[in-house]
Amino acid sequence: MAGNTFGQLFKISTFGESHGPAIGVIIDGCPAQLNIDLDFIQSELDKRKPGQSRITTQRKESDTVQVLSGIFEGKSTGTPIALLIPNEDHRSKDYEHNKDVYRPSHADYTYDAKYGFRDHRGGGRSSARETAARVAAGAIAKLLLKEQGIEIFAHVSAVGKINAPNLEDLNISELLELREENIVRCVDPATAKQMIECIDGIRKDGDTIGGKISCLIKNCPAGIGEPVFDKLHADLGKAMLSINAVHGFEYGSGFTGSEMRGSEHNDIFITDGETPRTITNFSGGIQGGISNGMEINFTVAFKPVATIMHNQQTVNAAGEASEIKGKGRHDPCVVPRAVVIVEAMAALVLADQLLRSKTNRVG
Amino acid sequence: MAGNTFGQLFKISTFGESHGPAIGVIIDGCPAQLNIDLDFIQSELDKRKPGQSRITTQRKESDTVQVLSGIFEGKSTGTPIALLIPNEDHRSKDYEHNKDVYRPSHADYTYDAKYGFRDHRGGGRSSARETAARVAAGAIAKLLLKEQGIEIFAHVSAVGKINAPNLEDLNISELLELREENIVRCVDPATAKQMIECIDGIRKDGDTIGGKISCLIKNCPAGIGEPVFDKLHADLGKAMLSINAVHGFEYGSGFTGSEMRGSEHNDIFITDGETPRTITNFSGGIQGGISNGMEINFTVAFKPVATIMHNQQTVNAAGEASEIKGKGRHDPCVVPRAVVIVEAMAALVLADQLLRSKTNRVG
Amino acid sequence: MAGNTFGQLFKISTFGESHGPAIGVIIDGCPAQLNIDLDFIQSELDKRKPGQSRITTQRKESDTVQVLSGIFEGKSTGTPIALLIPNEDHRSKDYEHNKDVYRPSHADYTYDAKYGFRDHRGGGRSSARETAARVAAGAIAKLLLKEQGIEIFAHVSAVGKINAPNLEDLNISELLELREENIVRCVDPATAKQMIECIDGIRKDGDTIGGKISCLIKNCPAGIGEPVFDKLHADLGKAMLSINAVHGFEYGSGFTGSEMRGSEHNDIFITDGETPRTITNFSGGIQGGISNGMEINFTVAFKPVATIMHNQQTVNAAGEASEIKGKGRHDPCVVPRAVVIVEAMAALVLADQLLRSKTNRVG
Amino acid sequence: MAGNTFGQLFKISTFGESHGPAIGVIIDGCPAQLNIDLDFIQSELDKRKPGQSRITTQRKESDTVQVLSGIFEGKSTGTPIALLIPNEDHRSKDYEHNKDVYRPSHADYTYDAKYGFRDHRGGGRSSARETAARVAAGAIAKLLLKEQGIEIFAHVSAVGKINAPNLEDLNISELLELREENIVRCVDPATAKQMIECIDGIRKDGDTIGGKISCLIKNCPAGIGEPVFDKLHADLGKAMLSINAVHGFEYGSGFTGSEMRGSEHNDIFITDGETPRTITNFSGGIQGGISNGMEINFTVAFKPVATIMHNQQTVNAAGEASEIKGKGRHDPCVVPRAVVIVEAMAALVLADQLLRSKTNRVG
Repeated sequence: MAGNTFGQLFKISTFGESHGPAIGVIIDGCPAQLNIDLDFIQSELDKRKPGQSRITTQRKESDTVQVLSGIFEGKSTGTPIALLIPNEDHRSKDYEHNKDVYRPSHADYTYDAKYGFRDHRGGGRSSARETAARVAAGAIAKLLLKEQGIEIFAHVSAVGKINAPNLEDLNISELLELREENIVRCVDPATAKQMIECIDGIRKDGDTIGGKISCLIKNCPAGIGEPVFDKLHADLGKAMLSINAVHGFEYGSGFTGSEMRGSEHNDIFITDGETPRTITNFSGGIQGGISNGMEINFTVAFKPVATIMHNQQTVNAAGEASEIKGKGRHDPCVVPRAVVIVEAMAALVLADQLLRSKTNRVG
Repeated sequence: MAGNTFGQLFKISTFGESHGPAIGVIIDGCPAQLNIDLDFIQSELDKRKPGQSRITTQRKESDTVQVLSGIFEGKSTGTPIALLIPNEDHRSKDYEHNKDVYRPSHADYTYDAKYGFRDHRGGGRSSARETAARVAAGAIAKLLLKEQGIEIFAHVSAVGKINAPNLEDLNISELLELREENIVRCVDPATAKQMIECIDGIRKDGDTIGGKISCLIKNCPAGIGEPVFDKLHADLGKAMLSINAVHGFEYGSGFTGSEMRGSEHNDIFITDGETPRTITNFSGGIQGGISNGMEINFTVAFKPVATIMHNQQTVNAAGEASEIKGKGRHDPCVVPRAVVIVEAMAALVLADQLLRSKTNRVG
Repeated sequence: MAGNTFGQLFKISTFGESHGPAIGVIIDGCPAQLNIDLDFIQSELDKRKPGQSRITTQRKESDTVQVLSGIFEGKSTGTPIALLIPNEDHRSKDYEHNKDVYRPSHADYTYDAKYGFRDHRGGGRSSARETAARVAAGAIAKLLLKEQGIEIFAHVSAVGKINAPNLEDLNISELLELREENIVRCVDPATAKQMIECIDGIRKDGDTIGGKISCLIKNCPAGIGEPVFDKLHADLGKAMLSINAVHGFEYGSGFTGSEMRGSEHNDIFITDGETPRTITNFSGGIQGGISNGMEINFTVAFKPVATIMHNQQTVNAAGEASEIKGKGRHDPCVVPRAVVIVEAMAALVLADQLLRSKTNRVG
Repeated sequence: MAGNTFGQLFKISTFGESHGPAIGVIIDGCPAQLNIDLDFIQSELDKRKPGQSRITTQRKESDTVQVLSGIFEGKSTGTPIALLIPNEDHRSKDYEHNKDVYRPSHADYTYDAKYGFRDHRGGGRSSARETAARVAAGAIAKLLLKEQGIEIFAHVSAVGKINAPNLEDLNISELLELREENIVRCVDPATAKQMIECIDGIRKDGDTIGGKISCLIKNCPAGIGEPVFDKLHADLGKAMLSINAVHGFEYGSGFTGSEMRGSEHNDIFITDGETPRTITNFSGGIQGGISNGMEINFTVAFKPVATIMHNQQTVNAAGEASEIKGKGRHDPCVVPRAVVIVEAMAALVLADQLLRSKTNRVG
């Protein structure tokens, strides 16, 4: 129960430290005969990889994925798919100077408290590098969902206090195109420009800034998600909160919904003769934990990255006051690279719940 | 994988519909030799039960808990603890009129979409009545945590747009006393008064209103929580999002943290010669998914209850436009009764992660 | 992880002690819209219940099953099915005299070693009474399997050294009819007669005797079972070994197969133009852990019941030499009542693996 | 739920096909600070590797293990340990000729029936090569158990009808020394000689033969194992039955116990003033599913290897009668190499149940 596995039927287990030989993931439960597009998996990893623009960390990793098992003649075999991503740029010595001090708002102290010692090279297992394995697995989940027409899209909806307007009703390829036109991955060009300027300034200050990512899921059929504990939004929430630096999650009306009255919040059903749909969507596409066929949407809040270029007071492993030097490579703002992580985790939840729904009824 | 089980080592499975003979819970994994105070369990249930004040639903249920197994001579035996809560006031006929129509923002339609039919009596399994079983199990989790000195406290921090000031640094018994002095369960008496007035007005309008509950956990030792997917706050988030009507979760700095800079958000470590502590607590007591020994805190957003006393347009199971009548019994605002549900779910997460931490290290 | 749950998708959790108010089971994951025949469930329980013939224990229990949830208008709803079986004849005082002594080959000592104390009334949780809950759940699994045409049959194939001839190739209803014609539940009337005489003698001696149960599963389609750890026969083996008093499990050629050559053991494939079948069936219907469409068969060995009517030397909880008195009620031979337990556990495994197979392939 | 994961707290997930680039395993849940002796892991793999003697398959694999994560400065870190074993001798073309025919008593047909196609190179995932990953993981489990003094030993107790005498009461290192003195891995030298002669003859015939392995576990403290479904022997049984070619499992008195009377089978407790022990050990060290402090023992039956050097009639994927040619490399008898697999699986069960027992009681 050490918590490196996610999902029930579409189940992934990740492994690897930021400065060991490799990180990777095993996917157990991918149905057989899924066409696996390796170029797509790599293109997803490329969106997360470090060094992709001036507003991300300058650490260099090609993040090239290798398939070890589970794919034969271009298709999943139904047996475990093992994917390996070798670590290339692991300058462990960059971290020697901080070996015994607890970096503020990192996991150094808590790992020591838990395990009695830790792999101190660059965060070890607590490094966000682990999320590359999730992105690789999430890419396969996306391929599975695409077979059912389900599509997932996320973009940066806020950097610091700069908020993007609500997404217009475009299709996923249009949204993707708009998003990839700028390095901050915000669909709205004007907001993107402001965000990039903000991050440029933050970087020059040797500081970091938080942000938000909004995600939507299109064409999810009604009936996905389990009632009670494994509600679809509860699984999505856990998935998002398991991403490094995430401090908040809301879906549908979210925190604003807590200020509303039932008479304005209720989503009234209408029908065009076929399946019911709702006029408003404060429910965020989920009612009673189960998808209702409307667009699913949620927002994730990221705290600022803890590694900054300032010297900071702290405590060392011996319990003495100490100072940590501001050096190394880091992201001034994590959200542009995290967009694809949010999508990957959403895809993993949806793929899992989709498979779980296959046994809802007899026959 | 039908999702009625929560937890890995301290594991609960709930069952029962709102209008069947009973609801209940099995706790599998409670360590042996825990002193079980049945009066405490009942007192927790009393805080959730309907009809306890004028601002809650007038449905009458004594919610008397019965022990079926797992407790012998006042102690847990290590075998499954089964707790039963008979349903008393199940006027199923109250729901006959709505049998074939989909109540807006309820789970009627999604259950039908998932299962092909449903137990339509009062929400069946999707009814918040299910949470009584969680409260009973959570009470036992609290008893287990108390043996380690860990205490959990929640109160109503917002009703609609009325927000309570931040909690003062009182101990848990002082906070509990303040909270139970008013029917809305907000620690601040002045805010509580405003909240009650607000709810009174809402009730007279036949309407409902959302709100927020804030929770804190004291004396959690450092080292609790698993890295990667089962981060302590990810498990807390899932637990909270699994409660009916919850639309958002944030911990520590939460959504506000996404607007901050790293230099202001980082929690600087200090020490008095013993264990490290932090000056600020934007981390909410959790770093890298693992408790750091500071107070854990989080906030949960509840949407307004969907049952209102207004007639509403909707669609029926045959796909025809229909109208739903505004009658029945309901809560104008769910948060006063939900305080103990939030505490129960937090206790279940902590008890589970506490047991999981027993195998962190050899020896 | 306290081990009171069985199955992954068709998942049961049992609870209850032999001398508490009730035992019971929650089934989570039964697909919706299964027709639930309560009379069938009760008739299965009747085959396990004590006091049904002179060769079983004379303890009297009607074992009447109550439905608490998950069934609505005669069908499963997809939510947890909770079944309760009240304990009627719990003469706890029968056990007072043995409260502090460890009964030989019972679980008294090991429960104390594990938990530090135990519910000593009649074996508590270690009592075979717990298997009534399995039979109730297994009956529902059988109903699910029957929808797919899968049928399960077990009978007593040995009492002590008296072995029945191999089963003739009859259909399940014929086998059932033959089996229920005698109180020992052996299909072969001549062997049954010998077995009953043997048990009668054993009972008069105040002693007990072991035996074997053989089980077959008809019409299981090819492709059921997971490779590697959750092989179909591995799950069946675990299921059987979890039944009280079971000391051995073999399938197909079993222990005898270990003495054979590959050239005689290999099951040669033939075909009549449709699906492949094999001439012999040393594989017991399972190859590589996956059903091959042939009849599945296995045998289970039960040790003699530990409760005998002789005084025995033993040790008490204080570590002193002690004596245990031979009194109380017991089964001279457990296999006649265990036939339906074997079937129930087999049905639970098959139902679980059948549901798991629903996600083998895309589409 | 695709079944490539084993264990609850000490949890392994294996991956890889016999003819892909590598096989491997992730261990999630190994406690931190365990000293990891890589030479020991390799020496265990060497006992399983092909080509080690004239009575094993002549396929050449060095089975060199690589550590990808989870070990730092010689100790487990508490995070996932990933071990990789590259495949070296994968002459896939050896299998081209059998690509479309179903080898008798292999998993070719059942994989096709389950997944619609398969990786046909050398058995793919159904190959016993997968067990190398188990041996590597089992070696780490053994290191964990050794810290508690628990030791595991298995040897070949039968080849065909040649049975070894019962093990004399030697300590584990004496037994190991005796066992490794001959290539068939039977402790008794005279029997070993007969067994080797038998296998030599079988090999010359191009045939194969079954056998049995007996295993004992010393110094397991009382109290390990969970009652009801996860009984210690049920977990051991499942573990053994999940090994390729295993058709039977018995513990303690086993199948012979089913012929005994209670008065002879009951293990009478005695005491020397300290903990109780039993005079006989028909219980095999386990009572009510929980270890009682006595030696644990069990026996596993292996069918003969299905690959033989004879031509055999069969059916192909098109449903036509076909013939399979007797060529390739294979083991004439699998048990000498399987001894260490049995030990590994036993170690994984014990390590898992040992960790599970850490939360039996409060405090």
